[in-house]
Amino acid sequence: MTETEPRAAAGIDRTMTEDESIALVDDLCLRYRNWGRWGHDDQRGTLNFITPEALVYAATMIRTGRIVSCGLPFRSDGPQSGGFGGRTNPVHSMLQDGGDIALGAQDDIALLRYTDDAITMPLQCGTQWDALAHIFYRGQMYNGHGLEHVTSRGAFINGIENIADAVAGRGVLLDVPLYRGVDWLDPGDSIGSSELTACAEAQDVEIRSGDIVLVRTGQIAQVRARGAWGDYDSGPAPGLGLSAAHWFAGHEISALATDTWGAEVLPNETPGVFQPLHLILLVNAGMTFGEIFDLEALAKACHDEGRYEFFFTAPPLPITGAVGSPINPLAIF
Amino acid sequence: MTETEPRAAAGIDRTMTEDESIALVDDLCLRYRNWGRWGHDDQRGTLNFITPEALVYAATMIRTGRIVSCGLPFRSDGPQSGGFGGRTNPVHSMLQDGGDIALGAQDDIALLRYTDDAITMPLQCGTQWDALAHIFYRGQMYNGHGLEHVTSRGAFINGIENIADAVAGRGVLLDVPLYRGVDWLDPGDSIGSSELTACAEAQDVEIRSGDIVLVRTGQIAQVRARGAWGDYDSGPAPGLGLSAAHWFAGHEISALATDTWGAEVLPNETPGVFQPLHLILLVNAGMTFGEIFDLEALAKACHDEGRYEFFFTAPPLPITGAVGSPINPLAIF
Amino acid sequence: MTETEPRAAAGIDRTMTEDESIALVDDLCLRYRNWGRWGHDDQRGTLNFITPEALVYAATMIRTGRIVSCGLPFRSDGPQSGGFGGRTNPVHSMLQDGGDIALGAQDDIALLRYTDDAITMPLQCGTQWDALAHIFYRGQMYNGHGLEHVTSRGAFINGIENIADAVAGRGVLLDVPLYRGVDWLDPGDSIGSSELTACAEAQDVEIRSGDIVLVRTGQIAQVRARGAWGDYDSGPAPGLGLSAAHWFAGHEISALATDTWGAEVLPNETPGVFQPLHLILLVNAGMTFGEIFDLEALAKACHDEGRYEFFFTAPPLPITGAVGSPINPLAIF
Amino acid sequence: MTETEPRAAAGIDRTMTEDESIALVDDLCLRYRNWGRWGHDDQRGTLNFITPEALVYAATMIRTGRIVSCGLPFRSDGPQSGGFGGRTNPVHSMLQDGGDIALGAQDDIALLRYTDDAITMPLQCGTQWDALAHIFYRGQMYNGHGLEHVTSRGAFINGIENIADAVAGRGVLLDVPLYRGVDWLDPGDSIGSSELTACAEAQDVEIRSGDIVLVRTGQIAQVRARGAWGDYDSGPAPGLGLSAAHWFAGHEISALATDTWGAEVLPNETPGVFQPLHLILLVNAGMTFGEIFDLEALAKACHDEGRYEFFFTAPPLPITGAVGSPINPLAIF
Repeated sequence: MTETEPRAAAGIDRTMTEDESIALVDDLCLRYRNWGRWGHDDQRGTLNFITPEALVYAATMIRTGRIVSCGLPFRSDGPQSGGFGGRTNPVHSMLQDGGDIALGAQDDIALLRYTDDAITMPLQCGTQWDALAHIFYRGQMYNGHGLEHVTSRGAFINGIENIADAVAGRGVLLDVPLYRGVDWLDPGDSIGSSELTACAEAQDVEIRSGDIVLVRTGQIAQVRARGAWGDYDSGPAPGLGLSAAHWFAGHEISALATDTWGAEVLPNETPGVFQPLHLILLVNAGMTFGEIFDLEALAKACHDEGRYEFFFTAPPLPITGAVGSPINPLAIF
Repeated sequence: MTETEPRAAAGIDRTMTEDESIALVDDLCLRYRNWGRWGHDDQRGTLNFITPEALVYAATMIRTGRIVSCGLPFRSDGPQSGGFGGRTNPVHSMLQDGGDIALGAQDDIALLRYTDDAITMPLQCGTQWDALAHIFYRGQMYNGHGLEHVTSRGAFINGIENIADAVAGRGVLLDVPLYRGVDWLDPGDSIGSSELTACAEAQDVEIRSGDIVLVRTGQIAQVRARGAWGDYDSGPAPGLGLSAAHWFAGHEISALATDTWGAEVLPNETPGVFQPLHLILLVNAGMTFGEIFDLEALAKACHDEGRYEFFFTAPPLPITGAVGSPINPLAIF
Repeated sequence: MTETEPRAAAGIDRTMTEDESIALVDDLCLRYRNWGRWGHDDQRGTLNFITPEALVYAATMIRTGRIVSCGLPFRSDGPQSGGFGGRTNPVHSMLQDGGDIALGAQDDIALLRYTDDAITMPLQCGTQWDALAHIFYRGQMYNGHGLEHVTSRGAFINGIENIADAVAGRGVLLDVPLYRGVDWLDPGDSIGSSELTACAEAQDVEIRSGDIVLVRTGQIAQVRARGAWGDYDSGPAPGLGLSAAHWFAGHEISALATDTWGAEVLPNETPGVFQPLHLILLVNAGMTFGEIFDLEALAKACHDEGRYEFFFTAPPLPITGAVGSPINPLAIF
Repeated sequence: MTETEPRAAAGIDRTMTEDESIALVDDLCLRYRNWGRWGHDDQRGTLNFITPEALVYAATMIRTGRIVSCGLPFRSDGPQSGGFGGRTNPVHSMLQDGGDIALGAQDDIALLRYTDDAITMPLQCGTQWDALAHIFYRGQMYNGHGLEHVTSRGAFINGIENIADAVAGRGVLLDVPLYRGVDWLDPGDSIGSSELTACAEAQDVEIRSGDIVLVRTGQIAQVRARGAWGDYDSGPAPGLGLSAAHWFAGHEISALATDTWGAEVLPNETPGVFQPLHLILLVNAGMTFGEIFDLEALAKACHDEGRYEFFFTAPPLPITGAVGSPINPLAIF
């Protein structure tokens, strides 16, 4: 299969006008809209697909006891370069450290000595979930709520705390570079619906309602190979194309994640719409998006284990009113 | 069983002198020291007790698909009052919000609109793991490393990132107030070895090597009943007494957590040693401590489900060099 | 003179309805509006009254070489209690300290050793200037600019950087408690136009165009006497009454400051309008407001020196787009 | 005069060994040591040279009423690139903004609407004073105090708050590029004692005890010409050479500042000692150092006014225990 076939198969007409792309996205938004599906007060969206039964089934994925973290280190040399509106890398500072102990600063404490620390960080500077309050389309976020619910005091609706106990289930990795036989996809390489299907088939993994699907593009491998983040945090990227909307919505996926900064192929295939899947899937279907996952070790583990399914959990920090959360996703085999 | 028996059973002589308590703690430190047990480079300590087999067994706890979060919300009205050296509540700030969208500040973006946010917080201001680099005793932390490994630039050894993929296994809740027939334990109430054993028996739960054990004192219920945190973040507290060292070390527990700020009973039973279990278990045995867990919903769930065992995971954020991490612990039935 | 006379003299009818107070404030806003007075691009407002001549005259105030700071320490036990929307006290953290040096963390540097630090703070958590972008009235700030100029990315107009080189001139202290013969004014005590005039006369100080006028209420003395900030940061306070608008506008004052959190008497005298002087003077006249000044040492110095005029400077940090700035105001005799 | 003469005139032997340079610096440290000169409790050092008489004389510099700020904007595109141990550019965030007002988030307030903001920043990330607690030499800071006085809780001695009311006096600009007839000095260009003398003579400005001396290298002009900060924050720089120690100490200068990140020429002329003037002048003489001053507008103003002397003030924020402070220095003619 050549690299261009998936895009062709996805049926995306790269010559669409802005207006045509807007009309297409609007149509897909309405087609996959889940507003009200789980009640008008629902703030979890497609994570509702993870039923108790699905979760119990997910537990059967744990067979060899191997754990893999998909979290990038949070540190000062992370992916952020300031390219995306005010996002910086984390600033970690020590409130007490070994030096304080050495200088006797804790000598009023009986024998025990301690260290302590703090962090300042954008919540989406590294491996993270977008909350459903992260994206608006035509003035509305998931379930039809307006702008007035996300002010400088945070998100009063669809904040990350609503999914504090919702993110555990069966995980599936789709290793697209492996499927294509390349080290990584290049910026601009699009992954469409038919390729997702073909990749899953090639990996012999069934997709089930409620699955959390991780799509590897290999961009972090590329970053490591060149030894620099470059514009990884905001620039062109390989990723999901517009037709992937059908696949994710059709399979009742609960959450998706990739190893890129914005999950979608950049430049987008829709000249008049930035990040259309965020509008179709996150805003309308209510699907939680994960970004900047490090899927390299997971890809190796799946290959070693001979299966691309696992138990998966990535509980967000329940920061009240947050529109995202740093996470440490775990895949357990 | 009366409330005082457990403490009597624990064999703690409340009339110990400072020197006697230091000698006793020193003895226990040596007795339960695991330095070198998992290699001189080990930075995970008792989490090594969670073998692949133990993890696979833990997965069998997932039977009804119920999930409970043990994480307190991270927000400005959290437990911190400034009582503990510089710890504040989280400061959550918005980088972009609905107001920016309303004012047209994102009108250069094609149709999509977004919100974004950041946080500044001490890493141990709420529900959290202590890293093994959090505590020193006589100039050493777990596995014998010195003060020079934790400077203002963070922990170069025993930082929280070392357990990024280590915290998932079988969880057990010991609901001590339920066992005692009270709403909550009061500050100063000590939980010793024999009471832990008796509580587990009363709950009909077996303790296994590698278990993560959560001990409920009910202090958060007390905070809620009075409607104020008060000195919850640094003051007297119910908690584990010195004799609990035998229980946790003897059962090969991988990690422990309570619903108080410091896990141990305060005032401590050892007049010359502050927080002796941190020295014995964290520094010497290499046991990861969890604090400020909200165990109220979990206690109810255990009661409802009729069992005090569950699958448990609480992956720390892999903040490089951090001596603790905020977490969102999940118990899955 | 009794304590109640000034308020009577101010002509404020405490029985005004909300609508009457709104009409009165609207009238004063229009009466004292300076929009366009210094050009439609002006972003300095009444600081323009400090002409080069006024500044040269101000220099003649420096006669004995005594300097007094009116800045409160910025530290964790400052006035903020969380009472005012998200304002906290400063968090000061060390990036490098003596302990790092002691542990050899800088041994790669040839002989020199250093310390370094950082701060996280609301810009108006202590002694501070309000920028002209800090207050809006009916959707407009100084010089008629709309809401869209202050987004999450800061103030694009009327930010504090516009007065970076504007705040130096003749300062005058009006020591109202001294004038009244009391230690301090109580919350709710209002200072009106006639009392300002009388106080200046009693102090034998002439008011000139361009003066920076500091009004002492003594509230910080009261805080110190009781040993607690209490609700100093957001609660009832002594301060300027509505009639003071005539005095400040009429005298062509360039900037005003008090030793309270909000400059104005609280509760305000206008039932339908919060902080009316901010609307009349800051938004309409373009007058820079200073708050949380510590005027205790200055009051003593004025008394010692036998004069209530001095050279005054309080340069704001030129934080681009900021709507306020912490300052360290200096009075020089 | 050629560009190389000053360095020759400075008498620095660029072939010194490490040991020779250490011996030379040690000798100069002892020669210019002021420990005890203003009492053993003194925490202001050479700022004591600004006597009341000197300050009154300084006021006579104010003759035309022109003010020039020497402060760089504090903003996200400032000089910091992460090159110097953890220093980042300021992060400015809005607590309330026009968008909140537009969305009605303040509609519980009667008519007034406000904006509010916060900052997170290293204290030495831009235009700043070093506190006397910023530098240690052989375990001691100014006046002989040890490492234990600067821990993670800040500086208990020699913190910036000690000079809160000390920094106002006569300022002198030495415009070295103008003197040399170049646009700017290049990294590595050293300014020695004899050139300082010659430059002052060429500018016809007398140097007096207590003066605050600003030395322009033009490096910020160079940054602007190339349109990028590059390694301005930590790399090679033009600046003061070792022999300048004689000049600054001999003239009883109260404080010095330059337009570079570290005041001194880099690479230093002393192979075994990093930043020797910090050791000789800051640690031993107790001289306050200013760095990252923007002297471009001031140079133009001095040229326009025909004099290189002015009233100067740059009050640091009184951040308790800080080892530096951001400032907005003002020169008034």
